[in-house]
Amino acid sequence: MEIRSLQRSDYDVLIPQINDWWGGRDMAGMLPKLFFNHFKDTSFIVEEDEEIVGFLIGFLSQDKSDEAYIHFVGVHPDYRKKNIGKILYDNFLNKVKMADRKVIRCITSPVNKTSIAFHQKMGFVIEQGDKTVDGVAVKSNYDGVGNDRVLFKKKIE
Amino acid sequence: MEIRSLQRSDYDVLIPQINDWWGGRDMAGMLPKLFFNHFKDTSFIVEEDEEIVGFLIGFLSQDKSDEAYIHFVGVHPDYRKKNIGKILYDNFLNKVKMADRKVIRCITSPVNKTSIAFHQKMGFVIEQGDKTVDGVAVKSNYDGVGNDRVLFKKKIE
Repeated sequence: MEIRSLQRSDYDVLIPQINDWWGGRDMAGMLPKLFFNHFKDTSFIVEEDEEIVGFLIGFLSQDKSDEAYIHFVGVHPDYRKKNIGKILYDNFLNKVKMADRKVIRCITSPVNKTSIAFHQKMGFVIEQGDKTVDGVAVKSNYDGVGNDRVLFKKKIE
Repeated sequence: MEIRSLQRSDYDVLIPQINDWWGGRDMAGMLPKLFFNHFKDTSFIVEEDEEIVGFLIGFLSQDKSDEAYIHFVGVHPDYRKKNIGKILYDNFLNKVKMADRKVIRCITSPVNKTSIAFHQKMGFVIEQGDKTVDGVAVKSNYDGVGNDRVLFKKKIE
């Protein structure tokens, strides 16, 4: 397995398969081309035998000079539970640390228990919400009406 | 009419109405919250009587230190042909010029003749494509299969 920075040409490879990685859910809209043109430096691809098996799209906050944000992470269904998420997050952390960022933020859906457990294992803390779902603090309607989110934060040491 | 920088709270105001501005088309996905959290500094709101009547979401390219990108611009249907687009673009241009950017890029759909005419009037040039639609150079499948785009570029002087 190899990890490298995102390339512009990854767009045409990822977009046609990305919905399948999520069992048919429409996820392609989460990957507008702008990330492949302008945020390659803090986004990563994991490959196995020259096939993409995982990716992380992240960026340095433009407004908050000490923050970085992870927008979207995906692992091919056949390659889950192989530590690819951790490899991607570790690379992102090292990259943004070099850019003097002190905090990484990201969000997930309250139903995504795997994601919540992953982030907690990776040392993210859950930010205060306005309600609790299965013991987890959740911010109601964070991504628009009906779209509650769990907000994660990790301090870089 | 007043112009100001984007605020985080604009998200909850804009998202419920944005699809209506486009006659019911699903456009809310073009406005993920990350822009309201991390790119406020180069994004703008035009208000009339404290109501939002126009917005521009743009950012400084993280990878290309001389570039800026305009992601998404909208004007309330009742406020079109009032120069709001020009006001937003002029403000963006001045902002990114201060950040030493030399080039602004953006894209539009080949069917959007109003947008193509607007960008040409604003001094954008159309980049080379791989086909021509109604006399305009177009890049096939730029935003995924079937999603051709016109690519604009403007040098800042």
